[in-house]
Amino acid sequence: MVSSSDRLSGFLGKPLSIINVGLASFADSLRQQNLHVVDVDWHPPPAGVSRLTHTQAGISIDDANTETLRRIMAGRPLIVGLGIARDVIPGMTDNTILHAGPPVEWTRMCGPTRGAVMGALVYEGLADTPDQAAQMAASGEIVFDPCHHHHAVGPMAGVVSPSMPVWIIENAAFGNRAYCTLNEGLGKVLRYGAYGAEVYERLRWMADSLYPTLSDAVAHGDPVDLRGLIAQALHMGDECHNRNRAGTSLLLRALGPSMARTCDDRERLARVIAFIDGNDHFFLNLSMPAAKAMLEPAEGIPGSTIVTVMARNGTDFGIRLSGDPDRWFVAPAGLVDGLYLPGFTAEDANPDIGDSTITETAGFGGFAMAAAPAIASFIGGTAQDAINTTREMYEICFAEHEHFTIPALEFRGTPVGMDVRLIMETGILPKLNTGIAHKQPGIGMVGAGVLRAPAACFADAFEAVKAW
Amino acid sequence: MVSSSDRLSGFLGKPLSIINVGLASFADSLRQQNLHVVDVDWHPPPAGVSRLTHTQAGISIDDANTETLRRIMAGRPLIVGLGIARDVIPGMTDNTILHAGPPVEWTRMCGPTRGAVMGALVYEGLADTPDQAAQMAASGEIVFDPCHHHHAVGPMAGVVSPSMPVWIIENAAFGNRAYCTLNEGLGKVLRYGAYGAEVYERLRWMADSLYPTLSDAVAHGDPVDLRGLIAQALHMGDECHNRNRAGTSLLLRALGPSMARTCDDRERLARVIAFIDGNDHFFLNLSMPAAKAMLEPAEGIPGSTIVTVMARNGTDFGIRLSGDPDRWFVAPAGLVDGLYLPGFTAEDANPDIGDSTITETAGFGGFAMAAAPAIASFIGGTAQDAINTTREMYEICFAEHEHFTIPALEFRGTPVGMDVRLIMETGILPKLNTGIAHKQPGIGMVGAGVLRAPAACFADAFEAVKAW
Repeated sequence: MVSSSDRLSGFLGKPLSIINVGLASFADSLRQQNLHVVDVDWHPPPAGVSRLTHTQAGISIDDANTETLRRIMAGRPLIVGLGIARDVIPGMTDNTILHAGPPVEWTRMCGPTRGAVMGALVYEGLADTPDQAAQMAASGEIVFDPCHHHHAVGPMAGVVSPSMPVWIIENAAFGNRAYCTLNEGLGKVLRYGAYGAEVYERLRWMADSLYPTLSDAVAHGDPVDLRGLIAQALHMGDECHNRNRAGTSLLLRALGPSMARTCDDRERLARVIAFIDGNDHFFLNLSMPAAKAMLEPAEGIPGSTIVTVMARNGTDFGIRLSGDPDRWFVAPAGLVDGLYLPGFTAEDANPDIGDSTITETAGFGGFAMAAAPAIASFIGGTAQDAINTTREMYEICFAEHEHFTIPALEFRGTPVGMDVRLIMETGILPKLNTGIAHKQPGIGMVGAGVLRAPAACFADAFEAVKAW
Repeated sequence: MVSSSDRLSGFLGKPLSIINVGLASFADSLRQQNLHVVDVDWHPPPAGVSRLTHTQAGISIDDANTETLRRIMAGRPLIVGLGIARDVIPGMTDNTILHAGPPVEWTRMCGPTRGAVMGALVYEGLADTPDQAAQMAASGEIVFDPCHHHHAVGPMAGVVSPSMPVWIIENAAFGNRAYCTLNEGLGKVLRYGAYGAEVYERLRWMADSLYPTLSDAVAHGDPVDLRGLIAQALHMGDECHNRNRAGTSLLLRALGPSMARTCDDRERLARVIAFIDGNDHFFLNLSMPAAKAMLEPAEGIPGSTIVTVMARNGTDFGIRLSGDPDRWFVAPAGLVDGLYLPGFTAEDANPDIGDSTITETAGFGGFAMAAAPAIASFIGGTAQDAINTTREMYEICFAEHEHFTIPALEFRGTPVGMDVRLIMETGILPKLNTGIAHKQPGIGMVGAGVLRAPAACFADAFEAVKAW
């Protein structure tokens, strides 16, 4: 397990790292000696996994994946405006509620998604109470659809209801658009499944004050280049999924002059700036649709085994591949290995939830953990763990990003483009970090942590690829 | 040079680093093998350097230094206001010009300091042209004094003239105040020795628009906690000397709501935000007086061998020790190993200049380079060089900072408190990074780079300590 060649590379190579394959207790004993150990969580690959080079139809998979990655990295997501969901999201109707992850009917929805749906129906004025909202949701009157079926993404429960304001992100290189709500902050918020007066009041203020202020500013200034902001934020300690302090700061800098020029209500402007300053996750709802906008033009490349969607609804975990972009491969959503807020334990935790893994899919988020060592304490790891996570993800990605780089890795491009073939060959599953919602509706956030994507959906996808 | 114990620690320890002592070519051959090498630039220590434990008067130097460090780390610098230099800086008169570094008379002033003085005298209306200003400066009409003699600090030439607005920083733990001008940005700016219409126009706008906007905002809101901002910025890729992108962003977030509430001129507010957004060094003129405010209460501890001032005027490099705080130990300012802007070479470079090394003196800046790997390309190094610089500086510092930590080093405190004894014992000289000014007056910035502090001033200081 530690060969003499390891010794040699330990002496002659860069920081000594040991890939621990399989037996965790061995890694622990190495760790006690202060060795850097990368846990690969290895399982024997399914029998007969060898490199699949061509589809049955004769398409070169490497060529297809090269094109997929070319499109992803050529994307230039810009903030081009804000709008009301029903007006701007294609296919959104007055009785549509969008949610995170793969499709799921009301009876199978997890607690936080139900809570967010109930809260949204009350907020919309369609129901008077959460109970009434639950009856309405169960009645079939409401159309539930994944955000991903409407060019949208949503963090955690990911609920988008018709009157909510959304960011409009346009990929200038391809012309496609993506959408996301505005981030509410932490605490008792709809996306974690909370409802109640505090939640509705905040949503109303966001629609009445935050939305027009941002909308007027965006309409007045030059479009904000989100690829540039993400690239900068990765040099400032963010990975743009669970840490967005730099991105939020840079956004405020970018929009500040236009906000000042277009907002004639000084107190409203002050409160908008204070709201953004008070919520270091504000930029998440821009890094996510930026990722979505970059990924969509890469959907539908025949023969491509690259994952272009990875999302969870709190019940199921689902992925979609570039080569068959309308088909979901799903597996049960996993349990998060987390740190909990005071008063909560793992008993309270809902399984993994949200569209925010679109960031990992686009080559940042957890895959760029090495850029965000300060996140370590938030999700229960060390700076070295963060470096190890990124190093490991290179093993399952088809490319290194041309625009997103990691200073601590000597500006190496982030791992981008999960290749189902590499995941099956190496047995390495995507590593994600995430917030944790309470499993009951109406409560909210209880913690944050890390987990691996479930193996089954990648195995199913790989079987499907073999039949292409 | 590489012992068997090195081999063992290379295999069993944290990332393999080799301290290369003396012979640089040996280090180069190790580097070609991708080994991490810390260049110590070692010279045989002066004969007879052994640990000095007590002064001749019987004071325990360790005890004295412990108190010095306690005071430095207890400091809580807050932005409490802005004011006009002549009104708020003690001892400032209508014919005083403050400059960076140790005392220097006009005839020995370097080009950029002369240029900044000439520009300031024209800006003040005391002279009509730079030539006339030079005559006035030479005539004895103008009192030249170091910023450091007036609780102030200034980057590069560090020129403060009577009508310039300054930040007022108060150390809430001790009640002392420090002062610094507002940062002009890059390009043709006074602090790099430039003068002319563009320079005066910017200074006038800063006095007429930037100053009242910031002053009103600071007067309205809670005092901004600079220790907190520096600590955060160190987790966001800044070292708060040559990289201040995060600090500048966080400052704008902190002052934004109050600026919005107090500025009744929307266009002025927009321009102020755009000016700050356009200058990632804006926070430098706050990190510097924050450092000064933290260090001053630690001056005057009998028997303390800690450096509490380190500054350059472009001609001389000077330090002062806590145990004898009014005495400068000086040596010729060094030449910077730098990268140059297009059209300039090392031939154009003025020697090392500015008070900005107050940041290293206070335990950040170049000493926290490991926090700022993205600065690497700016000053011509790698991320690993940045880590190595901080690791080396621990060897000459008395403590690790309680409040300033470095994520990439697993949140280890930054090296703080240069101990002249350790510098003499190890032969390791403080490593600085800095901008480079043109050696002629009136031109401005030509590059940026790194260098070591000169040995002679530390040797002289150590001799003086022996006589205490």
